[in-house]
Amino acid sequence: MAEYQHGGDIYSQKVELDYSANISPLGMPESVRQAVRQAVDRADVYPDSRCDRLRRELADFHGVKKEMMICGNGAADLIFQMVLAAKPVSASVMAPGFSEYEQALKAFGCPVVRYMLKKEDGFQFSLEDWEKALPDHGGIAFFCNPNNPTGLTAGKETVRKMAEICRDRKMILVIDECFNEFLDQPESCSFLDQAEKYENVFILKAFTKLYAMAGLRLGYGICANERLLEQMELVRQPWSVSTLAQAGGMAALKETEYVKMVQKTVKKERDYLKSGLRALGFRVWDSKANYIFFQGPEGLKEKLLERRVLIRSCGNYHGLDGTYYRICVKTREDNEKLLGVLEEEIG
Amino acid sequence: MAEYQHGGDIYSQKVELDYSANISPLGMPESVRQAVRQAVDRADVYPDSRCDRLRRELADFHGVKKEMMICGNGAADLIFQMVLAAKPVSASVMAPGFSEYEQALKAFGCPVVRYMLKKEDGFQFSLEDWEKALPDHGGIAFFCNPNNPTGLTAGKETVRKMAEICRDRKMILVIDECFNEFLDQPESCSFLDQAEKYENVFILKAFTKLYAMAGLRLGYGICANERLLEQMELVRQPWSVSTLAQAGGMAALKETEYVKMVQKTVKKERDYLKSGLRALGFRVWDSKANYIFFQGPEGLKEKLLERRVLIRSCGNYHGLDGTYYRICVKTREDNEKLLGVLEEEIG
Repeated sequence: MAEYQHGGDIYSQKVELDYSANISPLGMPESVRQAVRQAVDRADVYPDSRCDRLRRELADFHGVKKEMMICGNGAADLIFQMVLAAKPVSASVMAPGFSEYEQALKAFGCPVVRYMLKKEDGFQFSLEDWEKALPDHGGIAFFCNPNNPTGLTAGKETVRKMAEICRDRKMILVIDECFNEFLDQPESCSFLDQAEKYENVFILKAFTKLYAMAGLRLGYGICANERLLEQMELVRQPWSVSTLAQAGGMAALKETEYVKMVQKTVKKERDYLKSGLRALGFRVWDSKANYIFFQGPEGLKEKLLERRVLIRSCGNYHGLDGTYYRICVKTREDNEKLLGVLEEEIG
Repeated sequence: MAEYQHGGDIYSQKVELDYSANISPLGMPESVRQAVRQAVDRADVYPDSRCDRLRRELADFHGVKKEMMICGNGAADLIFQMVLAAKPVSASVMAPGFSEYEQALKAFGCPVVRYMLKKEDGFQFSLEDWEKALPDHGGIAFFCNPNNPTGLTAGKETVRKMAEICRDRKMILVIDECFNEFLDQPESCSFLDQAEKYENVFILKAFTKLYAMAGLRLGYGICANERLLEQMELVRQPWSVSTLAQAGGMAALKETEYVKMVQKTVKKERDYLKSGLRALGFRVWDSKANYIFFQGPEGLKEKLLERRVLIRSCGNYHGLDGTYYRICVKTREDNEKLLGVLEEEIG
């Protein structure tokens, strides 16, 4: 069995407080649960392979054409489909960064060039360094904004420059915006309203994190290049998105109040956790997302696991070592518990 | 959008009676629905990427080692994973046959050799002809037993010979047994109890059809080659099987009485439908599965669709034309309606 490399593994270890998976602190909206339970009644038969209604509602939601939408069995599914469809001969990823891009590229034998974020620059993104590290011509570049695990962002104008650099080089730029809505000002970083103008840009989104639907599996992509989307359709099974995920997604899109509550909670609790971690003597980066990146003593993860608290060790990220950690932002009650346990273990 | 090529498309057309998808006539067992509805409570977080409990229960159910089990987002997902993991340089498929094997092979650029079942032999499988049509050495062969759309079977001894021929040629033999349980004597055709002895054999199974769980997406594979399974794990996203599908699968395995009822219903209704179709003057093959393959006038599908009855035209299967059709076996009430409509349209 291949080793599991991500957060959220609450199945092979005893966990009471999971701080390792970056999921909405408020849990799945009740309306989504209800829609999914109701959809069980019609899950005997095959799902709509085109995700027709969901794509239409997503298009309306984001103000783009339906033809620009594609749905998948979680965003991770679309990463694999995208690589298989584009068949890139070279690829750029950012390190430290989400490992699935590289896993997908390797699965298809595509060589990967890593742009290393510099520790001495506080892991801040540098457009100049990123461009220098790009492969010569053609291929694909993955960019996560806000980045995972650092939680740092690139502004819209920077992203626009990246899209143009890639366009000039005949490269596809995949912008992973799965954590965008957790930012205080999502629109200052999102490239979504520009997607129609750039045929070489693919924006990746998911219901997983924002609506706490990780167990349902639903992600989507937005892209103006219809040929690329058609190619993606050809290299996937027809029924990748379950009937239940489609129903849950449509219910989630109506949850505007929920999203505001999530944003309010994350804003407040992110600050609370950062202060708490700093007070304990950890080095804490200024994450803008619903997770916090920090440095602490080696072995902290194991110590906390004895207390049934799971945090994400970042030791298996390229460019990091076992002193780096990531925790998600949860509710005040949980956050107080976490800081309490940390104080007992560290103090 | 890529054209949809299968049965079960009840979303883009008005359908009251769907005879185009080969799903259990008795619908999803109530215990499965309940298990899935309950699992919604824990679907906020990521599913178990290893499908640990489900794989253990499947292994017990089939009397094989847990290490031989792999789960996927429907059997179709595993077809793609298998091809990507094995990276075959050549492949054999049977025609007419299920088109997803060839779609997956083409997605990865693998050349495909088709073994054509002969119309003059009633589309019966010939071991000799199949062997002659195999690519030289290495690669992968897909074999569906019972075959789709014909419903004809190959006995266990024939399958054993195929497994040995493939072993000698260093080929992987993928045996799709997704419809096995609908046969009157499933064990006379299944190679499952031999799987442990053949490292080159991969058996494909699904919950989709037998338990009417097509909208949930859950398939699995059984294979003694642990390196191949590990390779499949490496080329997929970690969370391909949803929390809900895992819960539904575990509930379904307890439904032994349901399976007996399905088998009893299919046996009786298959005969009823065959007689009915023959009485209407159609040429009907002796399908052993939960679907029936027959020949009739061109345009029958369109005629029936006007009456909101959907049947599967087999015109897009290699080796067939627009006069071939497939219908599934449903309950007596539905089957009477279908035959009634057919009589009105044909008579």
